Amino acid sequence: MHRLILDGPPGLEKEGTSMSTDRTAGTVVTAADYETCPVTRVLRRVGDKWTPAVIRLLAAGVHGFNELDRSIEGISRRMLTRTLRTLEDEGFVSRRTPAAKAMRVEYALTELGESLREQLFALGRWAEAHDTALRAARDKG
Amino acid sequence: MHRLILDGPPGLEKEGTSMSTDRTAGTVVTAADYETCPVTRVLRRVGDKWTPAVIRLLAAGVHGFNELDRSIEGISRRMLTRTLRTLEDEGFVSRRTPAAKAMRVEYALTELGESLREQLFALGRWAEAHDTALRAARDKG
Repeated sequence: MHRLILDGPPGLEKEGTSMSTDRTAGTVVTAADYETCPVTRVLRRVGDKWTPAVIRLLAAGVHGFNELDRSIEGISRRMLTRTLRTLEDEGFVSRRTPAAKAMRVEYALTELGESLREQLFALGRWAEAHDTALRAARDKG
Repeated sequence: MHRLILDGPPGLEKEGTSMSTDRTAGTVVTAADYETCPVTRVLRRVGDKWTPAVIRLLAAGVHGFNELDRSIEGISRRMLTRTLRTLEDEGFVSRRTPAAKAMRVEYALTELGESLREQLFALGRWAEAHDTALRAARDKG
């Protein structure tokens, strides 16, 4: 069973489904927690350089490979291929070849990818709402 | 003015506060968008290896440096120092030295950090709710 690092309100951990507990030192985050926590896995994925741009574009509709390549400034075809493959492996993006156009490959968000997009856009609205505070902190630092 | 990559429902972009628009090719994500988008900035931050663990622990209460060090398996003191400093610079964590204990340094979530934590835990609940689908996709991949 995996354990979550970021799994809900603190102090509400349930035995066996949540963080390790060390009787003397309180909550401990182990290397295993990090490897298996599905939340940090998603964060690592969307924290990379190109994934947000791909999700952004696919949120607006189906794109061919070349359309994505043209629409993301600075991405190489190799990095785009790799980013799309990882998103496919994680179940967020699907690839299909329209029957009438054997040379064309189209990419779209899956239902799971669409659900992730909603989460990321919610985080976007949060960042926008807190933009003044975020900038003030950085300007001070 | 910054522009957001992940800023809300697609198709609702406002001129000047949102993505670049290329009249011929539709929406384009530029390198400048990536550098300045506050959302991808937050995602890069929380997508690193140690930040989720630190936020997790501070969500449960104030911690001293040594308590954090003991509570995160595998972290070096150098990486913990660097992670805390970055979180301070971003305005998510505050540091203080209690007057009575000149040698002790305590770390806590700021109001902004607490607000970010709520967002991350919401993402945690999402990942938990979609855990079956997330695993199924990866097992297939």
